[in-house]
Amino acid sequence: MIDRLNLPFDASARGRHVEIRRATRGDLDSIIRLLSDDPISAGRGDVASAEDADAYAAALDRIIDDPGNELVVVQDQAGAVVGTLQLTVIPGMARRGSTRLLVEAVRVTSTERSSGIGTALMRWVMDQAAAEAGAPLVQLTSDAARVDAHRFYTRLGFVDSHVGFKYSADV
Amino acid sequence: MIDRLNLPFDASARGRHVEIRRATRGDLDSIIRLLSDDPISAGRGDVASAEDADAYAAALDRIIDDPGNELVVVQDQAGAVVGTLQLTVIPGMARRGSTRLLVEAVRVTSTERSSGIGTALMRWVMDQAAAEAGAPLVQLTSDAARVDAHRFYTRLGFVDSHVGFKYSADV
Repeated sequence: MIDRLNLPFDASARGRHVEIRRATRGDLDSIIRLLSDDPISAGRGDVASAEDADAYAAALDRIIDDPGNELVVVQDQAGAVVGTLQLTVIPGMARRGSTRLLVEAVRVTSTERSSGIGTALMRWVMDQAAAEAGAPLVQLTSDAARVDAHRFYTRLGFVDSHVGFKYSADV
Repeated sequence: MIDRLNLPFDASARGRHVEIRRATRGDLDSIIRLLSDDPISAGRGDVASAEDADAYAAALDRIIDDPGNELVVVQDQAGAVVGTLQLTVIPGMARRGSTRLLVEAVRVTSTERSSGIGTALMRWVMDQAAAEAGAPLVQLTSDAARVDAHRFYTRLGFVDSHVGFKYSADV
């Protein structure tokens, strides 16, 4: 949990009220469902399999207990969790000692895409969370296959200046 | 400081012994010099200006005090700091609850490029640090202009599967 973030936050998705709040252990199933609802995540093994439940629960505990990480969910007025993302505050030397805010695991439920939920979440990151975390630089990577997402981030004002590399280590 | 990393680490750069160790406050000037020694960093304002000294010192304190971040330097047998990089351990839900290791701010002094220092640093990350941090996924982004760096990461086994986006927030 990142203490400094002022949550919950009342947001608006195309005029509809939604709440951005800290994820709790009670949100575990909703978050697993959001991951498996995405074809690229599902292709990497996030298929909401019962045998992975303990690994997801342990991961959620690690995130909640970490002072540099925040997992948030967006909840609609009916109480349904319709989106999620994770933030990491990263102190750094570059750019004259700038702190960065890394955004990971942005997911909106498939029935709610293009309904303004993703924009509400990202505007909260850009306009509220970055300042609250003292982070002048917000960064994220997006799978090269997510062409629609790239248009979305560009429209919001993000610049695709970097190449993102991954390596699978033996652990 | 990331407790679990087993540092200092004795490494070899083309047969030459180097030591990878935790950065200390005494390394501040060396690290600022490494940043300003890079044309892309210098273009973003990292020019080792005296008026930025306090901001860099505060940033180094934040990194050293952060349990999820480690700034390391590589030191040659003469005691000179010839390279640096920063690691961030990021717990996550995706990929069945995998923890990630983010690599930032990889820098090797310009007189030592192609001498194996960068390879020694990155092999330590991939072969030692990832396992010690419990992170099966290592990730980094590199400015699109750093074509030589991209070849270097690809040769090491990294896959350029993602696009990296940045946004400058008002803070």
